[in-house]
Amino acid sequence: MTFLSICGVKGVRAYGIKEGKFGLALISASGTAAGVFTDNLVKAAPIELMRKQIKKGRMEAVIANSGCANAYTGKRGYTDAVSMTAFAGSALGVEPDLIGVASTGVIGRHLDLPLIQRQCGQIAPRVSRSEEAETLAARAIMTTDTFPKHALVQKETFSVGGITKGSGMIAPNMGTMLAFIYTDAEIDAKLLSKNLKLATRRTFNRVVVDGDMSTNDIALCTATGESGKVNKAEFSQALEECCRSLAQQIAADGEGATKFIEVTVKGAQKEEEAAKVARTIIASPLVKTAVYGEDPNWGRVIAAAGRAGIEFDPYAVSLWISDGNTRHPLVRSGEIIADLKKAKEAMHTRKVIFILDLADGKKEATAWGCDLTGRYVEINGRYTT
Amino acid sequence: MTFLSICGVKGVRAYGIKEGKFGLALISASGTAAGVFTDNLVKAAPIELMRKQIKKGRMEAVIANSGCANAYTGKRGYTDAVSMTAFAGSALGVEPDLIGVASTGVIGRHLDLPLIQRQCGQIAPRVSRSEEAETLAARAIMTTDTFPKHALVQKETFSVGGITKGSGMIAPNMGTMLAFIYTDAEIDAKLLSKNLKLATRRTFNRVVVDGDMSTNDIALCTATGESGKVNKAEFSQALEECCRSLAQQIAADGEGATKFIEVTVKGAQKEEEAAKVARTIIASPLVKTAVYGEDPNWGRVIAAAGRAGIEFDPYAVSLWISDGNTRHPLVRSGEIIADLKKAKEAMHTRKVIFILDLADGKKEATAWGCDLTGRYVEINGRYTT
Repeated sequence: MTFLSICGVKGVRAYGIKEGKFGLALISASGTAAGVFTDNLVKAAPIELMRKQIKKGRMEAVIANSGCANAYTGKRGYTDAVSMTAFAGSALGVEPDLIGVASTGVIGRHLDLPLIQRQCGQIAPRVSRSEEAETLAARAIMTTDTFPKHALVQKETFSVGGITKGSGMIAPNMGTMLAFIYTDAEIDAKLLSKNLKLATRRTFNRVVVDGDMSTNDIALCTATGESGKVNKAEFSQALEECCRSLAQQIAADGEGATKFIEVTVKGAQKEEEAAKVARTIIASPLVKTAVYGEDPNWGRVIAAAGRAGIEFDPYAVSLWISDGNTRHPLVRSGEIIADLKKAKEAMHTRKVIFILDLADGKKEATAWGCDLTGRYVEINGRYTT
Repeated sequence: MTFLSICGVKGVRAYGIKEGKFGLALISASGTAAGVFTDNLVKAAPIELMRKQIKKGRMEAVIANSGCANAYTGKRGYTDAVSMTAFAGSALGVEPDLIGVASTGVIGRHLDLPLIQRQCGQIAPRVSRSEEAETLAARAIMTTDTFPKHALVQKETFSVGGITKGSGMIAPNMGTMLAFIYTDAEIDAKLLSKNLKLATRRTFNRVVVDGDMSTNDIALCTATGESGKVNKAEFSQALEECCRSLAQQIAADGEGATKFIEVTVKGAQKEEEAAKVARTIIASPLVKTAVYGEDPNWGRVIAAAGRAGIEFDPYAVSLWISDGNTRHPLVRSGEIIADLKKAKEAMHTRKVIFILDLADGKKEATAWGCDLTGRYVEINGRYTT
């Protein structure tokens, strides 16, 4: 029996249902828990609830719905989020205040609680540990996503697996999506939280689809501990690897995307400075549209770097374009050496990579995103209708 | 004889030529001068030159080309910018170091100096004070603009007029475009600079087309003084009015735009805080696409406000949508009262207005932008080819 992702982690069971726009997923896994949440001042009701809940450092299950974000819904929204945990708690026979809750969809609308209660009752008996079950859970939380997103990192003594959703309203600040990550490693809640924050900073926070930060971002991680104690550094690395894969899948499935873009900025004095420049480049509508049109208009990469708010010498930098196989130099120490024909050729594949060397230090960072297409406009021009 | 804009200001003469992508404008006007420039770390050669030149506080003429930005072109770029002032100086018979220079177009390419010299020689003898002449100058500096942009504010004793260009790579930080503004009021260079900075902050810096900040932004203002001394407050107001009109024209002509968007944020503690929220809303790709699709997805306006980095109580705010004639309430003191059918109707016109009251103070600010359409993607997907 092979497992795609979370059900490859010992102690994790799942199931999901998707009816038109409205989906519901249940994931059962008992263990220590950590979470990271959106920085948006306008936080959805489930986020407000989870920020309190997560302090317990333990979780028994997660209930997540798609189709309605339960955001900007006031006190009723908060009560509705509590109701979701009650539905899941009763259906799975666990304490409601140890249940994680997340929502995604249209903002400013109230949840259809009877629908969620009905769906919850339907799927709870089917919660199980199988590839089919986890795929249904991953599909249940999709909105404009075109494929379910999952990752599994298997180490000798433990595993880390996750599912995620996210396609639009993706900006580099906290999860910017829903992500449910599991490990069978035995990790206390405090260390789990520290590692999740680090991994989020280096993976989910380096994805930009459109620069819009969601009200509902959440990433939850539960460690079931069923595989016992593990090497801490190895765990941290495995968690980051799992999150990176999920983050890259979000970028690749950006709304309307035809290209996956990767930007590596090196030669910076600090990793976060390199990340800031990489994110600014990847968020630039002009870079995105140039990649879409396979137009080797590399000056836009330099122009975006210039407005990132980081000091560097523009005439010391070097820039390359790559399709993942061959690197073509565009600028060397400030001198334009671009062969525009070759640069254009490097843009024909689905993956377009820019490497920018600031020549100012030894730190580097990578960010991921996608091109901006007419399809993005179409998807978001009639989202609620 | 009626004048559209700059030639309505005493002492201003102009002319322009546009050949395919490559245009050149000459504007002759002797007086005190001030300028504001892009904040981008990567500054085009003409910007580097003008930052020095403007310190003299005087200007005799301006030469501006379109088709090539002369940005990221190193020492040769700087020498080329100096050459442009030499061409204009020789053609108009004035000191080259009192000539303003500006460029717009593709980044990372060198100027075609022989072409500019030839065009300069052709148009210099035709520099004159007429509606036709100033319109040709405004057209000469256009890139993806679909119409020439000009404004004239006539007061009893003086006038302020300007032309501008800008359609893409428009973000709220400094001019984000080329603007040449003239007045016949007698104003010393220091006061002119102070007033231009204030007007820029309140007008050009409140326009967002795509959030990309240009390497070539420049706004220059020359006061010929031919109308003598004026009331300072009245001048400041007239200058701001002229800049506001030009800024609104840039927003309305955003690349691919089908709608003009205006966002007013009131009830803030500080004007700049209101402006920050307004700019964040107007820059949101999700708000832009919803306006394009006439989708009354107002939750995105609240979500964008929430990530602006300003503290306010989301459940105290009120929100309206308007077509300029009728206001429809969407949220009142945090309570959702939207009639989505009426809200959708308000989006059928070319102008869509959101008014957000933060209920936290007495200051307000307005920002302007446009919708995001498939046409923007098409224009920018093949800009250099």
